[in-house]
Amino acid sequence: MLWPMRRTMYCGSVREEHIEQKVVLEGWVNRRRDLGGLIFLDLRDREGIVQVVVDPGSPCYRQADRLRSEWVIRVEGLVRARPLEQVNPKIATGQVEVEAQQLEVLSEAKTLPFQIDAGWRGEEDPKVAEEVRLRHRVVDLRRKRLHENLRLRHKLITAIYRFLDGEGFVSVETPFLTRSTPEGARDFLVPSRLEPGSFYALPQSPQLFKQMLMVAGYDRYFQIARCFRDEDLRADRQPDFTQLDLEMSFVTQEDVLALNERLAAYVMKETLGVDVPLPFPRLTYAEAMNRYGSDKPELRFDLELVDVTEAFRGGEFRAFAEVETVKALVVPASLSRKEIEGLEALAKSKGAAGLAWAKREHGAWSGGIARFIPESLGQRLEVGEGETVLFVAGVWRPSVEGLGAVRLELGRRLGLIGPGYAFAWVVDFPLLEWDQENARWTYMHHPFTSPNLDDLEHLETDPARVRALAYDLVFNGSEAGGGSIRIHRRDLQERMFALLGISAEEAQEKFGFLLEALSYGAPPHGGIAWGLDRWVANMTEEDSIREVIAFPKNKEGKETLTGAPSPVDPAQLAVLGLALKE
Amino acid sequence: MLWPMRRTMYCGSVREEHIEQKVVLEGWVNRRRDLGGLIFLDLRDREGIVQVVVDPGSPCYRQADRLRSEWVIRVEGLVRARPLEQVNPKIATGQVEVEAQQLEVLSEAKTLPFQIDAGWRGEEDPKVAEEVRLRHRVVDLRRKRLHENLRLRHKLITAIYRFLDGEGFVSVETPFLTRSTPEGARDFLVPSRLEPGSFYALPQSPQLFKQMLMVAGYDRYFQIARCFRDEDLRADRQPDFTQLDLEMSFVTQEDVLALNERLAAYVMKETLGVDVPLPFPRLTYAEAMNRYGSDKPELRFDLELVDVTEAFRGGEFRAFAEVETVKALVVPASLSRKEIEGLEALAKSKGAAGLAWAKREHGAWSGGIARFIPESLGQRLEVGEGETVLFVAGVWRPSVEGLGAVRLELGRRLGLIGPGYAFAWVVDFPLLEWDQENARWTYMHHPFTSPNLDDLEHLETDPARVRALAYDLVFNGSEAGGGSIRIHRRDLQERMFALLGISAEEAQEKFGFLLEALSYGAPPHGGIAWGLDRWVANMTEEDSIREVIAFPKNKEGKETLTGAPSPVDPAQLAVLGLALKE
Repeated sequence: MLWPMRRTMYCGSVREEHIEQKVVLEGWVNRRRDLGGLIFLDLRDREGIVQVVVDPGSPCYRQADRLRSEWVIRVEGLVRARPLEQVNPKIATGQVEVEAQQLEVLSEAKTLPFQIDAGWRGEEDPKVAEEVRLRHRVVDLRRKRLHENLRLRHKLITAIYRFLDGEGFVSVETPFLTRSTPEGARDFLVPSRLEPGSFYALPQSPQLFKQMLMVAGYDRYFQIARCFRDEDLRADRQPDFTQLDLEMSFVTQEDVLALNERLAAYVMKETLGVDVPLPFPRLTYAEAMNRYGSDKPELRFDLELVDVTEAFRGGEFRAFAEVETVKALVVPASLSRKEIEGLEALAKSKGAAGLAWAKREHGAWSGGIARFIPESLGQRLEVGEGETVLFVAGVWRPSVEGLGAVRLELGRRLGLIGPGYAFAWVVDFPLLEWDQENARWTYMHHPFTSPNLDDLEHLETDPARVRALAYDLVFNGSEAGGGSIRIHRRDLQERMFALLGISAEEAQEKFGFLLEALSYGAPPHGGIAWGLDRWVANMTEEDSIREVIAFPKNKEGKETLTGAPSPVDPAQLAVLGLALKE
Repeated sequence: MLWPMRRTMYCGSVREEHIEQKVVLEGWVNRRRDLGGLIFLDLRDREGIVQVVVDPGSPCYRQADRLRSEWVIRVEGLVRARPLEQVNPKIATGQVEVEAQQLEVLSEAKTLPFQIDAGWRGEEDPKVAEEVRLRHRVVDLRRKRLHENLRLRHKLITAIYRFLDGEGFVSVETPFLTRSTPEGARDFLVPSRLEPGSFYALPQSPQLFKQMLMVAGYDRYFQIARCFRDEDLRADRQPDFTQLDLEMSFVTQEDVLALNERLAAYVMKETLGVDVPLPFPRLTYAEAMNRYGSDKPELRFDLELVDVTEAFRGGEFRAFAEVETVKALVVPASLSRKEIEGLEALAKSKGAAGLAWAKREHGAWSGGIARFIPESLGQRLEVGEGETVLFVAGVWRPSVEGLGAVRLELGRRLGLIGPGYAFAWVVDFPLLEWDQENARWTYMHHPFTSPNLDDLEHLETDPARVRALAYDLVFNGSEAGGGSIRIHRRDLQERMFALLGISAEEAQEKFGFLLEALSYGAPPHGGIAWGLDRWVANMTEEDSIREVIAFPKNKEGKETLTGAPSPVDPAQLAVLGLALKE
């Protein structure tokens, strides 16, 4: 008879108000200690731990004596106050304990590959290599921190549902087995058995489906959508990831921004109790790049880039005299030559030509390129005694991005990044960028993004100056969301395809269904997608999104718990009309 | 300047209280009529249509005169009461109309492939072949009925979130790219590019992941989960489908049933305003089969099967004298011979040996097998004058299932099925069934289902009599959900695998991660999965789940809107280490 008796509450929910009450608890033995003839058990469930005391005179003493860590038990007992000297302020149940009267073992446990009990006691869990944690993810998932992260994720998602439902959004599920349209990232393919030689693709995003829902009049759509991109894995990327995807009809960019700000403020309040001031700061793409060297600037510290192009223009320092841009960064520290070399390598990895430097010592420039620096610049840059100034010079974008990376690294290293949460919009992205390699214009967001209608006349004549109605939501220096107003007229969409070098035939072949949809009367519409994994990681202050995903892939795209991917039976391939290539 | 002005409300939301107000509306021209020099537009958005009147003297008359069906426009105007004789009680805005003052065309439209305007006027949309509807799904999705279906689906899902969040359930996302474990249905495979020759599988359900979440202490989990099964398509099956998947720890079967009943009652009330009485009726598997010839009985009409085995046992009618079972169905109608022949074909398609019959005419048996029927049976079966009795005889299961199919068909044909919603639980399924073909025991639900512990002693000695702790939720004669209490002890799981003929090596290879998880201390747990597509179809009284999915596959598994599946570039296959077989 295992299950007839029911728990009366969670272990972690026992409080002083329950003193003198009889309770039934079920959970895991977080730790067992024997002291003065008594057995002390920390009994754990997802709400926390509670101390269970087994007296040698108790009828369940012999059973309790068998218990080991992580056994699953049921305990019936009486709640009582802990003796004053045993009160534990580190845990919520620290005022009380449960005197065991009956005890039942529901399941035994072997020794865990690593310990997870400390976190539940309010202490630090031991560090364990990530590969080991992922291989034993079931054990790892018992850690308090992962419980907290996944429950916060749940709170975020339910808050999103509440808010958007209240705003008239309709959640609609879009297909997972869809058509491969190889642009942007690489598709994951799914062979069709009913039509051997044909393939479905897993969706990179519900972009076109949500646009079609707008054309069909659904007006306000959202979905917590899993998306798939078969890209080479970087440190913090998963082959599948989760988006909050939303789209609205009859809106301007302002409407989308305003709604998403309110949504962000709502979820921050509901999940973390944090008040986020509205509206969010807005930066144009040009501002963000010029001031922070990034289109997703970390705004929890200042340390802005300063444009000093004119100060060097035509001057004696040849390297700075005729370049497109020269930017300076005043670092509130005296950096060693070795540190500067490391930072230069970082700047170069972003494409900068190099990293020049000088210091301000005894009221004058010294070291590095000191002798080339106009004296007046010291005052203008407000350089303090002993501080270092770093310079990049060259082509605008790689230069500012190089110095932007240095800025961020120094922000971390010097502890400049404040606590809290910083949101901002980056707007006015260029619609197109010149693809050097293929000598053609390519889209910066995607080919369905609307040009700013004020710039429409330049679309063919001067594509570089056309701004997109596109926007990114920046959250603590990461791109937490991105979206745009879409093209809703077939003629403009066709112009856009033509500009991108997509022939009419190719457009028809790949996007015929979209063009067809646009020709049946489409409303102006736009939307956004939030990267939910990154959102939760920012909210929980985790570096890696793997800490906020229950069963993530490792850095090689493998899920080592179950062992995916894996070879399959050749018969499974045969029915798909496929063979492995030697 | 297209977008600066904003709509002030939805078209379908204009009411008498807005009379004398200036409104801005945006939407589609549902219909245009010209009457007495005036132009009447039905302007449509997702909330409904409203009549817009353009006077020849209006400054926007010339623009209005260009308008055609499905153009997207913005209108500014004054709300006024309709003349009494023009009031239209069929639509919610039927008391009012909008006198247009300004008008802007946002997008033109070509003629639709089929008409969708009638439904919005409260009339019937013309019937269109499903293949045409699916190919032009964007147009089809404009129909009012699909709007209603998808919005009900949204309401259902938000109600589920509200209820389960309130009950302490945590939504957790489980992997989409997972390991292939071919048992049950066939997996959809996803070739890995980073590890050519290896494959991910799309999940058939999150079953094992949710069990691992229980082992990790998450206690109450749910997910609206997309699942994938590469099965041969039947009329109403999609290769991917949506489940409400949930799991609970430290529970008995009673707990799972009670919670799900409350959830079902809650969502029926929140979405349809329907009160569902609790608790749901419960039938054992044996009862359901014996009385209704189905393990998912349609309970909105009676017409029960009656066991008459004993009445024929050892009698002169050889075909009925020595069989396992004889069942009768008293049909409140006089069926023609041709009708009976059709029903017999149906019964045989379910495996029944045949369908015998007789009628009661002038107080005596006549026709068919009349002369073999004991006279007393007429009274016992309460056969009325002119009614037909149908019989099946033979092996129990195919016989009752054959007559069960006949029962359901007659229920439909004779209009016996009442309106409303009938829920029931079917419990006490057999744990195992004998697989004739492979001469071995196989599981009825899945290999992780717990035996009823009262029957545990018979597991190896008399497997047929072991009941499972498994349950199905039946909703209007369809299996709307199914679940079980799971095995939570490694030793019992290993016994189960052995019984199923899965060797220890094979178990380790396929389910090693589960066995490992169970060995770290697992709580008793169980759960259920609801088939959400079928739920919504039942709620909206649609026969096909394709009517409640935004972008469904057709009966051949194709998504004809975008054209999936499709051939792919050979280069895409090459990087996956794959080649098409000739």
